[in-house]
Amino acid sequence: MLNVALLGAGRIGQVHARAIAADGESRLAAVADVNAEAARSLAAAHGAEARTVEAILADPAIDAVLIASSTDTHADLIERATAAGKAVLCEKPVDLSLARAEVCLEAVAKSGRPVMIGFNRRFDPDFARLKSAFDAGEIGAGEMLAITSFDPAPPPASYIRVSGGLFRDMMIHDFDMACWIFGGAPERVSAVGTSVVDPAIGAAGDVDTAVATLTWADGRVAVIRNSRRAVYGYDQRVELLGSEGLLAAKNVLESTVEKITAAGTLSAKPEYFFLERYARAYAAEWRAFVAAVAEGAAMPVTLGEGVAALACAEAATRSAARGATVALSEVLGREVEHAA
Amino acid sequence: MLNVALLGAGRIGQVHARAIAADGESRLAAVADVNAEAARSLAAAHGAEARTVEAILADPAIDAVLIASSTDTHADLIERATAAGKAVLCEKPVDLSLARAEVCLEAVAKSGRPVMIGFNRRFDPDFARLKSAFDAGEIGAGEMLAITSFDPAPPPASYIRVSGGLFRDMMIHDFDMACWIFGGAPERVSAVGTSVVDPAIGAAGDVDTAVATLTWADGRVAVIRNSRRAVYGYDQRVELLGSEGLLAAKNVLESTVEKITAAGTLSAKPEYFFLERYARAYAAEWRAFVAAVAEGAAMPVTLGEGVAALACAEAATRSAARGATVALSEVLGREVEHAA
Amino acid sequence: MLNVALLGAGRIGQVHARAIAADGESRLAAVADVNAEAARSLAAAHGAEARTVEAILADPAIDAVLIASSTDTHADLIERATAAGKAVLCEKPVDLSLARAEVCLEAVAKSGRPVMIGFNRRFDPDFARLKSAFDAGEIGAGEMLAITSFDPAPPPASYIRVSGGLFRDMMIHDFDMACWIFGGAPERVSAVGTSVVDPAIGAAGDVDTAVATLTWADGRVAVIRNSRRAVYGYDQRVELLGSEGLLAAKNVLESTVEKITAAGTLSAKPEYFFLERYARAYAAEWRAFVAAVAEGAAMPVTLGEGVAALACAEAATRSAARGATVALSEVLGREVEHAA
Amino acid sequence: MLNVALLGAGRIGQVHARAIAADGESRLAAVADVNAEAARSLAAAHGAEARTVEAILADPAIDAVLIASSTDTHADLIERATAAGKAVLCEKPVDLSLARAEVCLEAVAKSGRPVMIGFNRRFDPDFARLKSAFDAGEIGAGEMLAITSFDPAPPPASYIRVSGGLFRDMMIHDFDMACWIFGGAPERVSAVGTSVVDPAIGAAGDVDTAVATLTWADGRVAVIRNSRRAVYGYDQRVELLGSEGLLAAKNVLESTVEKITAAGTLSAKPEYFFLERYARAYAAEWRAFVAAVAEGAAMPVTLGEGVAALACAEAATRSAARGATVALSEVLGREVEHAA
Repeated sequence: MLNVALLGAGRIGQVHARAIAADGESRLAAVADVNAEAARSLAAAHGAEARTVEAILADPAIDAVLIASSTDTHADLIERATAAGKAVLCEKPVDLSLARAEVCLEAVAKSGRPVMIGFNRRFDPDFARLKSAFDAGEIGAGEMLAITSFDPAPPPASYIRVSGGLFRDMMIHDFDMACWIFGGAPERVSAVGTSVVDPAIGAAGDVDTAVATLTWADGRVAVIRNSRRAVYGYDQRVELLGSEGLLAAKNVLESTVEKITAAGTLSAKPEYFFLERYARAYAAEWRAFVAAVAEGAAMPVTLGEGVAALACAEAATRSAARGATVALSEVLGREVEHAA
Repeated sequence: MLNVALLGAGRIGQVHARAIAADGESRLAAVADVNAEAARSLAAAHGAEARTVEAILADPAIDAVLIASSTDTHADLIERATAAGKAVLCEKPVDLSLARAEVCLEAVAKSGRPVMIGFNRRFDPDFARLKSAFDAGEIGAGEMLAITSFDPAPPPASYIRVSGGLFRDMMIHDFDMACWIFGGAPERVSAVGTSVVDPAIGAAGDVDTAVATLTWADGRVAVIRNSRRAVYGYDQRVELLGSEGLLAAKNVLESTVEKITAAGTLSAKPEYFFLERYARAYAAEWRAFVAAVAEGAAMPVTLGEGVAALACAEAATRSAARGATVALSEVLGREVEHAA
Repeated sequence: MLNVALLGAGRIGQVHARAIAADGESRLAAVADVNAEAARSLAAAHGAEARTVEAILADPAIDAVLIASSTDTHADLIERATAAGKAVLCEKPVDLSLARAEVCLEAVAKSGRPVMIGFNRRFDPDFARLKSAFDAGEIGAGEMLAITSFDPAPPPASYIRVSGGLFRDMMIHDFDMACWIFGGAPERVSAVGTSVVDPAIGAAGDVDTAVATLTWADGRVAVIRNSRRAVYGYDQRVELLGSEGLLAAKNVLESTVEKITAAGTLSAKPEYFFLERYARAYAAEWRAFVAAVAEGAAMPVTLGEGVAALACAEAATRSAARGATVALSEVLGREVEHAA
Repeated sequence: MLNVALLGAGRIGQVHARAIAADGESRLAAVADVNAEAARSLAAAHGAEARTVEAILADPAIDAVLIASSTDTHADLIERATAAGKAVLCEKPVDLSLARAEVCLEAVAKSGRPVMIGFNRRFDPDFARLKSAFDAGEIGAGEMLAITSFDPAPPPASYIRVSGGLFRDMMIHDFDMACWIFGGAPERVSAVGTSVVDPAIGAAGDVDTAVATLTWADGRVAVIRNSRRAVYGYDQRVELLGSEGLLAAKNVLESTVEKITAAGTLSAKPEYFFLERYARAYAAEWRAFVAAVAEGAAMPVTLGEGVAALACAEAATRSAARGATVALSEVLGREVEHAA
């Protein structure tokens, strides 16, 4: 039984609290949040204690911490928790600054403690099935990957201003998906971003509509499309062309019911947002973390992979600003190690 | 080059005229119709001559006749045309009377001339593909067949009164499909019919909604569903459960375009009616007839099969009236020869 | 908080135990089973006590019992539990004998206690959506209902012999669905059954392939197709033709992933069996029972409806044996009350 | 009746010959080809004459010429034919050189004769339906367009060497689609191309896998994905995200038949290549040309639009080589006129 403390009692923290509680081999022991009332309320709902971060990290009975606090606290908390000997699952991104994330990576390496980054989509059953079919060689060699990821509605401009921008905040999931599916980081990134959805986003200095093309050293490419708004819901698709066929993971629809009338055939739209679409993924992600900690196995998503996704985001941000392709080696200050 | 005369210049005659003209190995030479103006107009459109039936049958230059006149003339024309040495393609049904159809069958047998019945659906590319996959053993042994056949709108009551009733007029296509797919006639038929679509149809003594269950001697069953009205178009589906899987031929839709909005996913409805859905089938049917005549091969749909479908219709009509299963041997006055 | 005792610790009992435990407003307090070890093991897994039926019924702290024991015990247990003042959720069917079920119905009426029959499919989210769209008038007046229900693999002949036969054991779910969707029982039933799947089933005196056509007094019809074997999984579909369109609830597939190769497009098959397909339905069913008991509201599925489904099964059994349509009034010995 | 001469009797010339012959208001009068035997054979098949280009252009009885010869002859033949007073339908591209195409554009403008470029995909019924739904405002303002266009198999390296490269030879269709749907040319193009399909293509100096992102002045973007090989057939899809929804035109499949077995659900793959997929489009394209000539109406696809597509191809070629976004104004030497 893994004793877990949750740092962060906001919306995503609540999702994780449920996953921790539902898993037969973990127990939510403590919750911390800068908003003490939020911590108390969430802790109470799960029979846990509201405590300070300090108390949690000092408590040898806590085996692991799940970091779901605001992005600017991630790197610090990862460093402090691993230094205190905890296993860590931290929400993405590691940090908005690639340099800061790399410092964190070094610190963690020294601690020797396991850190997993919460790229939940890898644990979506459909994406996982696509990945395993690809790895089993079902469509031969991978050639062109296409990821579609649209949110149902844009966030408020206030959020945009602290988000780090679309590439670091939203597309980072897709960068990780691409690196995961292709088994390593790309050589270079070419990105375009515009604001056509909401002028307030453009005014806040960000884009709401973006395309990034990633190229691997051996010629494979991945295209990622992001929009802050698809009024019909959360559009989450992956498609991979290989030398012997194509694999596609389609949207999960709200229902199988169809209505055919003189107006046409009306069927369901995609599930509305991440809480609906990725409910199973969050549970599977937590299961994978608990199992890896229990077995002392390698983390299913490493901190290094979190840094690689961030490097892609940094490269995409520069590329969109500069109107030119940006090599990952430029943003990393060193050559990329290609896993594949 | 097959010289063809068309008997009947109505709606379905016009469909056939186009198929004859479009085929590279047949030529529409003559058209006859009780409506002389209709015959002249259709003949003119295809560079053919408007002639009487007598003149056509007496002309040794006419190789084949396509009978598309009213149902009550079919049996007579088949007999006269074969007696005159013509090859014949006749629209379904052979006759509304099973006894009359059986007399015709005998007469044709004596003539030794080839007669094909126009069950166009066998030539629909999707149904043909289902049939060939089944015959190739792709789903093992056939167990349960389900045919859905709904018209987009009910005919006027005036038509209903001369139609012979839904089972002989509409479901006869589905009886033929079932016998064709399963390779022979069923042992018995159980049918239910009601009028819920249009009270005028009920008042005219017919049903507009019907279900027939056919049972073969070895236990295989087929279920046929008919409705005179599906407001969304022509619903034409076949589904076959076998010991190793299921084959389904779905509707052909008007378009591949989908629109996803907050209201859901809107895609196309089925093609509207038989002219749209079975355009390719009519061409393939004619091609098959011309090829079989040219090669002296067996007709792709025999007159005997036309009689078998009519026997099913007769049995279904009696079953629905009587509230009991009716054996085909009862309506035929002899045992059914089971092809399969 | 509803204190619940579970009578029956077999496969379906275990499904219900999880639903009881997962619901925030019910608590599994006790488990009884003729197999004491099974009761102990299931009780232990949920922090409940293994007790005798007698002890459970005598305990005023038990508010409700869930009957998931063998069919031949259902009617007795319903009568005893309601006499003891418990609210009851009982698995289908009420009994294999219609007469016995009617006696039970009377006894329960005298007790004044609420009894719900476990027709779980009504709580499947897709079927529920179809029903509510129909009730909202989205396709006009209902005309023809079609239910497809195939199991993935036939049960052993030993089960067949005590099952009451396909119509009472398997198709009873579909009879309930038809009555539920159309809002009342049919006037008459016409059924056909054969054995083509497994000769052992035929040898045991049952059918494995069956079709029933139900007719309502106003002309509406429902067609139910059952097979004991669809090798690809649990085929569970509902389709309803109305005066203004068609509603269809399709199968729930195992995944959204598609693979397109030179061999074609390969997508997932339906979820394998009822545990997978109806997991959500069992939870919703239990939720509905708990809510209705808490509010003193009418049961979402009444014992009377359980009797009506059984009457359909009895009529279908007779119809298939007799080769003739059977009126529900014949099997009930009285007129059917048509709810719709 | 439009008297037409066909210049070019190769594969695509044969497609056009059939379309000319099938149209009720045009007549194939003459065929020219550098391969005299090819011209003779195709002419004979359609009751036309094999003649020289000179003889054709000098013949006042010829109303229109369809240019389907090799790309390097297009611009010359357009100029000569319009100078001779003919209406022209010319296959894409106008020329491999943008400068040459612009000279041709000027010459044609002086001639005052109508010239249409053969971007057949605009006439595909599904793409046309998507376009008209978009123009009707069904998904609000257009934001992100995605075009997928994969060929079933790569051409030989010999073809690659004279093709002008993937962007000018293959993606030019998609550039036209994007400009057509969005109603004008983009401001800038960012493209990436690699060779992962066939090393011979890379060795020939071309790419076989490419992505281009087009940006309009108002922030709209279009992403085009091309591959020279999708082993399952011709993958031709368009998807358009708007402020109120998404429109998608999916692949046309070879059949509606599905087979469900324990291995999954197997359905058809896309139609194999352009002859199958765009048969209807070629007929509709020719119909549109004939109608426009007859009515003296504007050409449905103008030579200027052909030049715009070529400008996009030139910009994409430079962008992929340079690793930077290229403005259309750079390749045109002037500002783009934005139609939208």
